[in-house]
Amino acid sequence: MACLLIRDVRNNEGVRFDMLVEDGRIARAAAVIDADDGWLVEDGAGALALPGFVEGHTHLDKTHWGMRWYRNAVAPSLPDRIENERRWRATSGHDAGAQSLALARAFLAAGTTRLRTHVDIDTDAGLRHLHGVLATRDTLRERMEMQIVAFPQSGVLKRPGTDTLLADALRAGADLLGGIDPCAIDGDAVQALDLLFGLAERHGVGLDIHLHERSTMGAYSLDLILQRTAALGMQGKVAISHAFCLGDIDVGARDALLARMSELRVAVVTTAPASVAVPSVAACRAAGVTVIGGNDGIRDTWTPYGSPDMLERAMLIGMRNDFRRDDDLEIALDCVTHSAARGCGFANYGLLRGNRADLVLVDAQTPAHAVVARPVRKLVVSAGRIVARNGALV
Amino acid sequence: MACLLIRDVRNNEGVRFDMLVEDGRIARAAAVIDADDGWLVEDGAGALALPGFVEGHTHLDKTHWGMRWYRNAVAPSLPDRIENERRWRATSGHDAGAQSLALARAFLAAGTTRLRTHVDIDTDAGLRHLHGVLATRDTLRERMEMQIVAFPQSGVLKRPGTDTLLADALRAGADLLGGIDPCAIDGDAVQALDLLFGLAERHGVGLDIHLHERSTMGAYSLDLILQRTAALGMQGKVAISHAFCLGDIDVGARDALLARMSELRVAVVTTAPASVAVPSVAACRAAGVTVIGGNDGIRDTWTPYGSPDMLERAMLIGMRNDFRRDDDLEIALDCVTHSAARGCGFANYGLLRGNRADLVLVDAQTPAHAVVARPVRKLVVSAGRIVARNGALV
Repeated sequence: MACLLIRDVRNNEGVRFDMLVEDGRIARAAAVIDADDGWLVEDGAGALALPGFVEGHTHLDKTHWGMRWYRNAVAPSLPDRIENERRWRATSGHDAGAQSLALARAFLAAGTTRLRTHVDIDTDAGLRHLHGVLATRDTLRERMEMQIVAFPQSGVLKRPGTDTLLADALRAGADLLGGIDPCAIDGDAVQALDLLFGLAERHGVGLDIHLHERSTMGAYSLDLILQRTAALGMQGKVAISHAFCLGDIDVGARDALLARMSELRVAVVTTAPASVAVPSVAACRAAGVTVIGGNDGIRDTWTPYGSPDMLERAMLIGMRNDFRRDDDLEIALDCVTHSAARGCGFANYGLLRGNRADLVLVDAQTPAHAVVARPVRKLVVSAGRIVARNGALV
Repeated sequence: MACLLIRDVRNNEGVRFDMLVEDGRIARAAAVIDADDGWLVEDGAGALALPGFVEGHTHLDKTHWGMRWYRNAVAPSLPDRIENERRWRATSGHDAGAQSLALARAFLAAGTTRLRTHVDIDTDAGLRHLHGVLATRDTLRERMEMQIVAFPQSGVLKRPGTDTLLADALRAGADLLGGIDPCAIDGDAVQALDLLFGLAERHGVGLDIHLHERSTMGAYSLDLILQRTAALGMQGKVAISHAFCLGDIDVGARDALLARMSELRVAVVTTAPASVAVPSVAACRAAGVTVIGGNDGIRDTWTPYGSPDMLERAMLIGMRNDFRRDDDLEIALDCVTHSAARGCGFANYGLLRGNRADLVLVDAQTPAHAVVARPVRKLVVSAGRIVARNGALV
């Protein structure tokens, strides 16, 4: 791969510099780098350089992105939504392969170069959705690093055979094991979590568990998860998605849980929804818990909202946490950049020499300005390749 | 003014039609209208036609829109923020005239044709900010209908002379009288509200009162406001902005207040912030209370957030209220269109014959799709004039 010289970009402190990319990695950054013959040269024109964004929680396989508008008339309970989706996926001709590719490409065009997606594994569809998303990952493998979570949307206990399918999914290429509400969905938190942790241990994979359970029920499940994380020595391999209970239990109980999570290096993944209690980003960080940002589903049967623009997600995380100061907005941005990469385990991340050359150029005066203005992505570079210009893939 | 024929647009139900605009008003809508010589003809190309948007609560005079990025390092209390702003406005060279014009133009480009703005009146600046916003209103008078609220940001009791300035502001052209937190800012709710209602009555204007007070303190102030609205016969002339207390008092107390508000035709103005309790749009509407949507400040010393795109505000109102169904998203859109116009008293509103020809064309399949996708405004027509194309003023 040829050398790529990106001239005249700005860092967070407003210092202008040139960056040399070689073999997909950042080879040098300096005030001025003279171009050699045969190098590709891009003029950044003073744009702000941000690291490629990280989407820490989405569901590429569910989206109807780019399809005819899905008219949502679904009843509001979780079981209603799960059954509605199952019905729709079975009858609509929805194709997880084509749809996940369409949305992943939109993510890439908006500057996301690393992404974790949960893929439904269930006894109706088997591994069909997974095969679609695996094909998308393969198609984009040189431009996007993708982690796939084998996700039992309907729980692990109520539909016999789900555990075997999850094992099959991990053998087929899923990187992590998912889970969901062991009390509210599975009805037996101990049995469900024993099954999940047993599977994860046998396959040597990490866990990322959806925990929508509120208040004390959620805290009970979270305690069981932390017990098993410690018992199995899975420090640094477990993430809790949503963790709404951390937003509505007593602060004392919350801080005790956060202290244990910090010690076990259990991350929180937040989509910062505006309509439910959420974990406080500040409280998590103060306790030493890594916070990862994500969209959750994007335009699917669950929700009409969501966007492949991770600057928008950073803005929503900021709004939800009442972050108004510039330093706080930089924390919101961190949730979809450095912290997300660290929490998910994406390696060689960030605009430092030797790291994978993933960067995004935007016309913004500061990182905080980028978060609130969400300007068009002038240039997106992934693993050293120019993948998008002015918001469109090249 | 020449006739303008807008061909081939779609209504909310997907029916395609042509619309004839004459003398700034909607003269006809029909499946097909044949053009006469001398008419301007625009091809809508099947775009969705929405009525011009309504911004129900902003602060045009405070914004630094388009200026150098304001680095926010402000302490979080309300008095801190008020003092910080006062200092910044006195020393930064900020010009409420130029800034309000810049932001109002951005609103117009994004399809907002009617707007209510609160303008700071205080004993430091006198009517300086008001004169700036009055100049903006005059500059845009043929393209935007603007209501100006004379807003005592620092309260009415603590800085002697504020009441005189408010009276001067109403004589100078402000349309409504504002107010703020009569317990928390003024410290004497009865005296503050007596002063405000007395002023409003003498000048024959309506009231739009900022009520950030939470819980029972806010409910106490709201009760005092409703008492005075009834006593002075000001039905239909009072709005409560924010009304956070309606989001965190007991549901029974809330519903009793909402019933009185409905009877007195007191509207709620919500910006639907994600980080505090807010009035439930569904509960307000179920009680018959009109809900108006708005941004609050946009990129000022208070907040880095906000956007002149009222479709984005509708989306945020939808997210805050957990609106996921299409019919609910149409309610969110209603908060920045029909309900906002009704609540603010903007006349001749909506895409019906005889009304002022204010419309916005977007490439969206349905109104719900428009709210979540926030597509570029293909065409904005205000009072029969084409004012913007593809997101930019013409």
